[in-house]
Amino acid sequence: MRGTQGKPYVSPHWVTDAWSAFTDDRVVRVAVDAVGGDNAPDEVVKGALAAAGPQLNVVLVGDEPRVRALLPPGAAHLSVVHAPDVIGPGEEPATAARTKTGSGIVVGLRMVQEGAADAFVSAGNTGAVVAASVLYVRRIPGVKRPAICTIMPAMPAPVAFLDVGANAECRPEFLRQFAIMGQAFAREVMGIPEPTIGLLSIGEEPSKGTPEVVEAHRLIADDERIAHFRGNVEGRDIMNRLVDVVVADGFTGNVCLKTIEGSARAILGALRATVMLNAKTKLGGLLIRKDLQVLKDALNPEEFGGALLVGMNAPVVIAHGNSRARGIAQAIRMGRRGAVSGLLPTIARELGARPEAV
Amino acid sequence: MRGTQGKPYVSPHWVTDAWSAFTDDRVVRVAVDAVGGDNAPDEVVKGALAAAGPQLNVVLVGDEPRVRALLPPGAAHLSVVHAPDVIGPGEEPATAARTKTGSGIVVGLRMVQEGAADAFVSAGNTGAVVAASVLYVRRIPGVKRPAICTIMPAMPAPVAFLDVGANAECRPEFLRQFAIMGQAFAREVMGIPEPTIGLLSIGEEPSKGTPEVVEAHRLIADDERIAHFRGNVEGRDIMNRLVDVVVADGFTGNVCLKTIEGSARAILGALRATVMLNAKTKLGGLLIRKDLQVLKDALNPEEFGGALLVGMNAPVVIAHGNSRARGIAQAIRMGRRGAVSGLLPTIARELGARPEAV
Repeated sequence: MRGTQGKPYVSPHWVTDAWSAFTDDRVVRVAVDAVGGDNAPDEVVKGALAAAGPQLNVVLVGDEPRVRALLPPGAAHLSVVHAPDVIGPGEEPATAARTKTGSGIVVGLRMVQEGAADAFVSAGNTGAVVAASVLYVRRIPGVKRPAICTIMPAMPAPVAFLDVGANAECRPEFLRQFAIMGQAFAREVMGIPEPTIGLLSIGEEPSKGTPEVVEAHRLIADDERIAHFRGNVEGRDIMNRLVDVVVADGFTGNVCLKTIEGSARAILGALRATVMLNAKTKLGGLLIRKDLQVLKDALNPEEFGGALLVGMNAPVVIAHGNSRARGIAQAIRMGRRGAVSGLLPTIARELGARPEAV
Repeated sequence: MRGTQGKPYVSPHWVTDAWSAFTDDRVVRVAVDAVGGDNAPDEVVKGALAAAGPQLNVVLVGDEPRVRALLPPGAAHLSVVHAPDVIGPGEEPATAARTKTGSGIVVGLRMVQEGAADAFVSAGNTGAVVAASVLYVRRIPGVKRPAICTIMPAMPAPVAFLDVGANAECRPEFLRQFAIMGQAFAREVMGIPEPTIGLLSIGEEPSKGTPEVVEAHRLIADDERIAHFRGNVEGRDIMNRLVDVVVADGFTGNVCLKTIEGSARAILGALRATVMLNAKTKLGGLLIRKDLQVLKDALNPEEFGGALLVGMNAPVVIAHGNSRARGIAQAIRMGRRGAVSGLLPTIARELGARPEAV
């Protein structure tokens, strides 16, 4: 998974084996929340079965009898840990993370804390996953705030985008750290050797944006840990892939991410309506259908599986709430990739090396 | 131009006569910046020629000899005022608005101030148009900040979206006023009788978002001038048209607007690449081409012409910097619509009636 600006066109086909393209011999244990998300436990179990293998042991953390009933006899590389409680989508994250100790989220993250698992995947309450991760897995020393780093299906190749929702408010120093963590993610997880970085704002000039963004621009430009800072980028530059990594505060990033998802769905929906207009357009639609599916797949967020909560002591993957088996399987593979890659040591080295004011 | 949620599907075709659908006998004079934007003066003059008529007198404000050379002999309902200076895209807006008194922007807005024109249109430096509008046209008493209100080509009918760039930082009280002005815009300019309002945030719950957004939610919910507040909306809800009016701060709004434009362009570009793949897909593309053009037109921001700077004593239309003749003509028609509609008196009545703390 690579392709920096200027490199030849990368077909959307690559996404169909985004994570399986990276192989090695290490055995990684990924704990998976089997109670969180819209389609638990059925689709979670199906996804786990698809992802599990000799190098990828999956621990399903959920309602044990229900999960076991869904497993075929003799399913290999899979185990089950009982944690029947659900943290609902409306629950206050910090409170739930502290009190719901029998939930898939808390039990799974405590397994990571205790060394019983190397990574964690959940399609449940995002705020609760972030809060419980901070509580149990803990931040890498030196990291002020973790950030949710997602992979956007940009053209012609994907873009790393963070923070897409962990921090509604961001001090300039947080944004600087996001740039460093995003660079590490692009390099170590996505395999882009020399990632370029952009700061999301409302104009190219360093003076454009809120005072926080203007100050963050200065901090990032002056930081020698960030190799290829391209300055401010605008909303249109995300999907057109002007840079490999886009940095934003969690409010703007989350709004933007959902805006892109909504726009893609609206446009593809209008395209479908256009094709269904009459016999002529239906025939036309039939002729492009197969190739159009490739485009639709490329725009499908499930193809990457989820977003990684960067800055923690272990990979925590936040999958879409409505993930089906394919999305869960990809999220589990993303968790494995996070664990075997150089992401964590790189962040620890770059953010932990120097004493910085909190 | 109407179609509230739940009403029957509105074809994208409607946009081709978005503004000409509104007709009346009043004569309106629109001053048009003929030096600003990427395609001045040629495309501006062409657009003015297309829009001018007995009820729409256009004053071209620019380099008089150059503009006159582009006018056919005996062009009716058109006049020219000399203002050869350009405020470039990189110039500091507030300074330029004060000092470049020979620019199309300042001369045109002073014509509005002095009653020589009823509305102003520019495709030039947006910041300078906003700053000069505040200086010369002035805010409606009671309006704390003007907002740039654009019309998004959402499905199945357009959505009003403000602020998309006038104010990078917004206090909760500004957002409350944007909700009131957006409601007036949807009702009076777009013709939606009972517009619904949404506040852009990162979750439906009133507790989601920055402290400013959470407080704005409370202010808007408690304000009896806002009839149909639907609470927070998310990025995906803009193009899917969950509400008629979306309110945001100018930083988030601008990033979002450009994100939607960029996503639409990226997806339509990928669709074009898909169609060009081989003989079969090319034939398919040929069969849907005509109907697909309707969709492309519906997504083209030029079809609405521009965004309206709401909160000023006269309609100021900010056209896309790269507008061609069609976009300029639609922007001029939007300016006329702004002048004859009940927009200004409604805002004056709703925001000027009560004493409010600054």
